Amino acid sequence: MSILIKGGTVITHELTFRADVYCENGKIAAIGEQLDVPADAEIIDASGQYIMPGGIDPHTHMQLPFMGTVAIDDFESGTAAAVAGGTTSIIDFVIPAPQQPLMEAYQQWREWAEKSIANYSFHVAITWWDESVKRDMGTLVNDHGVNSFKHFMAYKNAIMCTDEILVASFNRCLELGAMPTVHAENGELVYHLQQQLLDKGITGPEAHPLSRPPVVESEAANRAITIANTLGAPIYVVHVSASETVDAIRYAQNRGQRVYGECLAGHLVLDDSVYQDKDWDVAAAHVMSPPFRSKGHQEALWNGLQAGTLQTTATDHCAFCAEQKAMGKDDFTRIPNGTAGVEERMPVLWQKGVNSGRITANEFVAITSTNAAQVFNVYPQKGAVMVGSDADLVIWDPEAKKTLSVRTHRSRVDFNIFEGMEVTGLPVCTLVNGKVVYRDGQVIGQAGDGQCFDRPAYGQY
Amino acid sequence: MSILIKGGTVITHELTFRADVYCENGKIAAIGEQLDVPADAEIIDASGQYIMPGGIDPHTHMQLPFMGTVAIDDFESGTAAAVAGGTTSIIDFVIPAPQQPLMEAYQQWREWAEKSIANYSFHVAITWWDESVKRDMGTLVNDHGVNSFKHFMAYKNAIMCTDEILVASFNRCLELGAMPTVHAENGELVYHLQQQLLDKGITGPEAHPLSRPPVVESEAANRAITIANTLGAPIYVVHVSASETVDAIRYAQNRGQRVYGECLAGHLVLDDSVYQDKDWDVAAAHVMSPPFRSKGHQEALWNGLQAGTLQTTATDHCAFCAEQKAMGKDDFTRIPNGTAGVEERMPVLWQKGVNSGRITANEFVAITSTNAAQVFNVYPQKGAVMVGSDADLVIWDPEAKKTLSVRTHRSRVDFNIFEGMEVTGLPVCTLVNGKVVYRDGQVIGQAGDGQCFDRPAYGQY
Amino acid sequence: MSILIKGGTVITHELTFRADVYCENGKIAAIGEQLDVPADAEIIDASGQYIMPGGIDPHTHMQLPFMGTVAIDDFESGTAAAVAGGTTSIIDFVIPAPQQPLMEAYQQWREWAEKSIANYSFHVAITWWDESVKRDMGTLVNDHGVNSFKHFMAYKNAIMCTDEILVASFNRCLELGAMPTVHAENGELVYHLQQQLLDKGITGPEAHPLSRPPVVESEAANRAITIANTLGAPIYVVHVSASETVDAIRYAQNRGQRVYGECLAGHLVLDDSVYQDKDWDVAAAHVMSPPFRSKGHQEALWNGLQAGTLQTTATDHCAFCAEQKAMGKDDFTRIPNGTAGVEERMPVLWQKGVNSGRITANEFVAITSTNAAQVFNVYPQKGAVMVGSDADLVIWDPEAKKTLSVRTHRSRVDFNIFEGMEVTGLPVCTLVNGKVVYRDGQVIGQAGDGQCFDRPAYGQY
Amino acid sequence: MSILIKGGTVITHELTFRADVYCENGKIAAIGEQLDVPADAEIIDASGQYIMPGGIDPHTHMQLPFMGTVAIDDFESGTAAAVAGGTTSIIDFVIPAPQQPLMEAYQQWREWAEKSIANYSFHVAITWWDESVKRDMGTLVNDHGVNSFKHFMAYKNAIMCTDEILVASFNRCLELGAMPTVHAENGELVYHLQQQLLDKGITGPEAHPLSRPPVVESEAANRAITIANTLGAPIYVVHVSASETVDAIRYAQNRGQRVYGECLAGHLVLDDSVYQDKDWDVAAAHVMSPPFRSKGHQEALWNGLQAGTLQTTATDHCAFCAEQKAMGKDDFTRIPNGTAGVEERMPVLWQKGVNSGRITANEFVAITSTNAAQVFNVYPQKGAVMVGSDADLVIWDPEAKKTLSVRTHRSRVDFNIFEGMEVTGLPVCTLVNGKVVYRDGQVIGQAGDGQCFDRPAYGQY
Ligand SMILES: [Zn+2]
Ligand SMILES: [Zn+2]
Ligand SMILES: [Zn+2]
Ligand SMILES: [Zn+2]
Ligand SMILES: [Zn+2]
Ligand SMILES: [Zn+2]
Ligand SMILES: [Zn+2]
Ligand SMILES: [Zn+2]
Repeated sequence: MSILIKGGTVITHELTFRADVYCENGKIAAIGEQLDVPADAEIIDASGQYIMPGGIDPHTHMQLPFMGTVAIDDFESGTAAAVAGGTTSIIDFVIPAPQQPLMEAYQQWREWAEKSIANYSFHVAITWWDESVKRDMGTLVNDHGVNSFKHFMAYKNAIMCTDEILVASFNRCLELGAMPTVHAENGELVYHLQQQLLDKGITGPEAHPLSRPPVVESEAANRAITIANTLGAPIYVVHVSASETVDAIRYAQNRGQRVYGECLAGHLVLDDSVYQDKDWDVAAAHVMSPPFRSKGHQEALWNGLQAGTLQTTATDHCAFCAEQKAMGKDDFTRIPNGTAGVEERMPVLWQKGVNSGRITANEFVAITSTNAAQVFNVYPQKGAVMVGSDADLVIWDPEAKKTLSVRTHRSRVDFNIFEGMEVTGLPVCTLVNGKVVYRDGQVIGQAGDGQCFDRPAYGQY
Repeated sequence: MSILIKGGTVITHELTFRADVYCENGKIAAIGEQLDVPADAEIIDASGQYIMPGGIDPHTHMQLPFMGTVAIDDFESGTAAAVAGGTTSIIDFVIPAPQQPLMEAYQQWREWAEKSIANYSFHVAITWWDESVKRDMGTLVNDHGVNSFKHFMAYKNAIMCTDEILVASFNRCLELGAMPTVHAENGELVYHLQQQLLDKGITGPEAHPLSRPPVVESEAANRAITIANTLGAPIYVVHVSASETVDAIRYAQNRGQRVYGECLAGHLVLDDSVYQDKDWDVAAAHVMSPPFRSKGHQEALWNGLQAGTLQTTATDHCAFCAEQKAMGKDDFTRIPNGTAGVEERMPVLWQKGVNSGRITANEFVAITSTNAAQVFNVYPQKGAVMVGSDADLVIWDPEAKKTLSVRTHRSRVDFNIFEGMEVTGLPVCTLVNGKVVYRDGQVIGQAGDGQCFDRPAYGQY
Repeated sequence: MSILIKGGTVITHELTFRADVYCENGKIAAIGEQLDVPADAEIIDASGQYIMPGGIDPHTHMQLPFMGTVAIDDFESGTAAAVAGGTTSIIDFVIPAPQQPLMEAYQQWREWAEKSIANYSFHVAITWWDESVKRDMGTLVNDHGVNSFKHFMAYKNAIMCTDEILVASFNRCLELGAMPTVHAENGELVYHLQQQLLDKGITGPEAHPLSRPPVVESEAANRAITIANTLGAPIYVVHVSASETVDAIRYAQNRGQRVYGECLAGHLVLDDSVYQDKDWDVAAAHVMSPPFRSKGHQEALWNGLQAGTLQTTATDHCAFCAEQKAMGKDDFTRIPNGTAGVEERMPVLWQKGVNSGRITANEFVAITSTNAAQVFNVYPQKGAVMVGSDADLVIWDPEAKKTLSVRTHRSRVDFNIFEGMEVTGLPVCTLVNGKVVYRDGQVIGQAGDGQCFDRPAYGQY
Repeated sequence: MSILIKGGTVITHELTFRADVYCENGKIAAIGEQLDVPADAEIIDASGQYIMPGGIDPHTHMQLPFMGTVAIDDFESGTAAAVAGGTTSIIDFVIPAPQQPLMEAYQQWREWAEKSIANYSFHVAITWWDESVKRDMGTLVNDHGVNSFKHFMAYKNAIMCTDEILVASFNRCLELGAMPTVHAENGELVYHLQQQLLDKGITGPEAHPLSRPPVVESEAANRAITIANTLGAPIYVVHVSASETVDAIRYAQNRGQRVYGECLAGHLVLDDSVYQDKDWDVAAAHVMSPPFRSKGHQEALWNGLQAGTLQTTATDHCAFCAEQKAMGKDDFTRIPNGTAGVEERMPVLWQKGVNSGRITANEFVAITSTNAAQVFNVYPQKGAVMVGSDADLVIWDPEAKKTLSVRTHRSRVDFNIFEGMEVTGLPVCTLVNGKVVYRDGQVIGQAGDGQCFDRPAYGQY
């Protein structure tokens, strides 16, 4: 199977140039003008279009069992949405139940993911601690290509890590050359605020943001950063949503520490007025943690991306339908936390970032793909348009227009948080491992087209 | 007993003016020139001298049982040192053992303190939590004039508070109109670093600062500030020693939060080179927590005082002799933590602050006395030279000179961290409750001259 | 003439207490309960009311000749408005024309001010430079009680100071113990932007804020702060309106520099949407420099006051009627710059500050009166409720209500930027030099009741 | 002429990989293992060595006429030193005398530079303003490959730009797609401080840093940044030496502005104690502007590079011998300002940056070469190891050792500010345009080997 993408303009995280791109055996085999390719190579005309590294979404939760239900998008529907949005790789999360052996959970998730259309890899969450966990972390890094571990600082009485576990696990990461990552929210404060709100009879989705104010996030981020600093480990903060957290990350970076920050497409464009919606279902559909923030925070996130304080963009794609959300009808703390977005991330960022003049097209590539590849040490295998790189590519039509909507998205979820947003600039063709999986509005990839990719330890930080 | 202080210049936190001060029945009864006073009033000539509010040291530990021994200065020797240094009031700490009823501990400390020469009051530490603790906090505030509670964020496996306790206790403080205060160091990190250092065979006092780096302090301060912010409570951070903590406090203040910071005379003038002393006893004599910091931090603390980020100065006077320090001969974590200084605080601050031009004499009064009185809600009973205020006064000779030394100090401890410092500007006479307790180099006050003072709840914050 | 204010609660910048206040010969003669006063003393019942230091507005421009016209409020009408709003002293500006001798201008303004009902003093502007200016600065400080000089960094081709003049004049201030103050806007940038806007045909009031963006202000403030820092002089920045300027001031303060900042009642509560008003007269009525700012800046100013970054509040009262504003009908750069507010400042700050819970009543006194007195070295003559202080007092009814309006204000101007604001908390009686000048809604003071007050050099900074 | 570099490890700003590099006709023609190359290709064995993009020094002054003399290194000796240190391109400065036509000055410098061994390009300084300057800027950009203009904010009465010129010139840069750059020091303040010091009789080199304190630099940087911000132009600040300037740049970047900062090898490792040297010649040899700074600033610069606040490193190579420096024997303001370093920059940065663990080898490439190429829009022609890039390469032996010294350096100057520094990691071979110009300690390049390179307008910012 060989494909020649002709006539397009290649855009990488740092260069823009006219070239054809030839893919063979899942890899990029040649880049240039007037390439000499086999006669039977399939030709894709990319005239007037951009050829970019396929997106990498470093934060998704397909078919996650969570809060008494299971996220509605499995690895097939979820990655169908991904490739339709130009994303060719996801990094999902293995989340062992407390006391569950890590390897058992890991094998479970690997099985679930086999039907993926996009490539995938796994962060593994540390939700409890003993010697077996420590040992399994080594096995995962050394034998299974896992180079990052996730820690929840919220969700008290469930999967929250104490500082004691954070110290032990970050230290283990350091030994293994792996990256510790955190969901940064102070779980004690969230719990206290939740009880206080419920005690006052405030039980609807409007209570959700009140129970998780910005400083609850920045405090936890600062704590994780401090633990990492003290141990000499790098640290990656997932879904930064608050200006205070951007400040905390920048403060550490400016003192020479290696701190990385991720933000979500949703947090970049939505604000917390969504929780005031009079339709319970609409308000509940936006319940995710951390919550959407008041106006002002969005600007801080964009500035964080522009200034290099934040490196990556993700979605935390974790889709629940109205019926599932309704579990929290009388108690907002029981509304399954999560929103979708894996299909919309790249168009939304192009529209609000590139079309608005905030970021260049090269910076778009950096924050949707290359930076994630670099932080998680799979560059230039991924995140690059280079000879030898995986042929994970998106062909982007900067003139194509669309109105984002639940009516047309691929996710199984019954709500779209970007509903009605008009975007100019869309993927027209997506290649995963050199195979066209999305073209002209149709997902043509098959379950199993995606492959699990290893991420080696000891990245460049 | 009535006393007329004649011929001096009154200096308060905001005014400097020529006036005589007449004291009667323990109070300031008149201020002015040519006062009409009883013929038998004792006259103190203060020509060429300053009359200032007596110092308030809001952080001392007299005869504290700690780390297997007891601090060597009891309330008599400790307050003798205090008044000799111009300090007329201390706020000491009741520190209940975990599970010990608060009221029992409080009564114990009250008894110990009866022999004080200076006035005194108590912060009460929250070292554990249950309903009785919560109830006793109310009793202390409502019936015993306690308006502040202390929380240790360090000392794992001993008196460290978890976030859960911090949240519960700060919330209780808020209900009661009391001020939560914190010893801010992340106990998990300190413990981890201690073990790591011991494992590496680094067991001497030089390991002490390595086990408690600045960010371990600023992290905890930021966490306490965040908890207070979330609950809507004020917060007071004791012994701020690191520039990073000053930054954290300022960040919160600049967003409208009521945060108060204290720093110690020692941290303002000493740096961590003391831990490199080849004489184990000398190095160990400086072991206190937080430790003395590298050069640069001292400047940040002075700037913090000048800019109003920090409000108060204290000593954390907690004296241990060489013999006691030797308990940690083979293990720095067993060296009793603490240094003296209650006698030297005011002369050191005058020398390094006023004589250097960093602060004005009025600002000196603010940071040694008035601010503490205001934060702990006993102003203008204390911290003021006003008619009706307690006659707690210091007469200061700006020309008097002395070399600070263990050979001449009043504390029972066998070491002086300010050894050899030449100071110009000293107390020549100290009055407690209108009685002269120190004059011309002699402590003439008696055990029991000091009185316990109440601090009402609901201060101005 | 002696007056006893009975039954009220005295509120100062740091204390709140029940006391009667007795005034005699223009001074406060006694404070306390059950005062022994002459039988013929006038009694004012202040039951349920607060007795506070009269407001000091450190920034007004009565009958200022400016931009081809003259501000509509003269010293009589302007100070009538002042006392009706609780303000008992203003510090106005002598602004010599370039090349005009300072002393000549000073005498002119002194004459104009003789009809004031409130007390007054003058900052003198340095609008040009030669040896005579330098000499006259000395005369003003040494013989006329002037201790502050103003420098315009904007208004190119008119009264703008070059850096060369700033350096020379700040240096002269340092020699004299006077305070340099600045109107901080980069005049070159303002001029450039004005021309650019006019060139594009954007000529209405909506262009005004576009020609003076926030960084144009913070740049100039930072420059003035740097010059002061380099010379070792203090510095006072008038009408801080932008968050960036607050940041610049704080940055310097936090490094130990003595920097003071003033903000205006208008900037604290209004935003730049006013310039979008479709009624040209309304939009033009809001034209002042610096302009009202976008949302977010107001919060930064309040935080600046709360955190002590900014010390004083003023109005820049400089009133022009619609007819005058119309001079700029075809060219926004010709709209006379200025708004009124001297009557509304204190009620507005009480409403938005105290009633909202942002600041305490004591802090209200600090920022409306005491801090200005301290910075400009007339404390405790003014800004205090102390025996011996000037009897400049306001009796405040915290329950009194009013809707601010052009229909009821005392200024001659035909517009009120606070129109329609409902306030609770108003002056019911104002005393200037021990004489009641405002009571029960009536200004009963006479032209000439106000006196010029000296401000000695070498204040406490 | 074709060369195959065999056996080395290629290090770029983002990748490290084993590959041979084949150069032909001045370009990199192939990269990979087992390359098929002409039999007569010269082979360079790079086993155990690194192949990196040749250094780009974006700030040198060869044979500059300045302060009454001429810098001692001409373009031949200066670039001999450059290539011996691994630097293959310099960007020097055309500095027209006030009133001198830009094109005339430009032609003069072009002539002087013809004998260069390294490649070269020119920033052109704007030292005065009229319509001809504006026009010539256009000619330079459109016809001569100049894309950056330099502005001196210091050097009053000589080449200092007023704000008026800065606004006009930055605006012109914006029109042309060129980058404005600034030497940021407030010239008025420097002049004032110089006169003040001379007046006090402080005439030696120790006065130099006193006349140019850090805030004099950060003020000017902030001013230039503000002008650029207001106009919408990018801005590049040369030789950032002070932590305050790093703060100013970061502040702007964090708000979304495109600001770039350069720092010098000297400022990264030397502090201002050099000006205390008792040997006048030694102290004077270090006189450059901005001066070396007190301890603490070096750390801030390194942090700036690590955090991406600063992008480039340079030398400001401008060499004067002791005899020349002696012109200022009695007046420090007449000591020709300048130090050398073009040969030492890369070894010093490797030693203090890479060997110390501060930065990675990839980051070393970024800050010594690639970032400069990107900012000045010649990437990937320069700053890259890519097929098609100029064959400007350095072969680096990470094990090679040397002690830096005036005795062995190539510059004609008689002093080495890095004297005695031991470095591990040195260039062993340098190629310019595919020709070996330095090998095994010998400069074998010829005058004229270097070529002038164009830098196109409208870079990626
Ligand atoms: Zn999460
Ligand atoms: Zn997640
Ligand atoms: Zn402590
Ligand atoms: Zn203590
Ligand atoms: Zn103004
Ligand atoms: Zn004004
Ligand atoms: Zn320069
Ligand atoms: Zn230069």
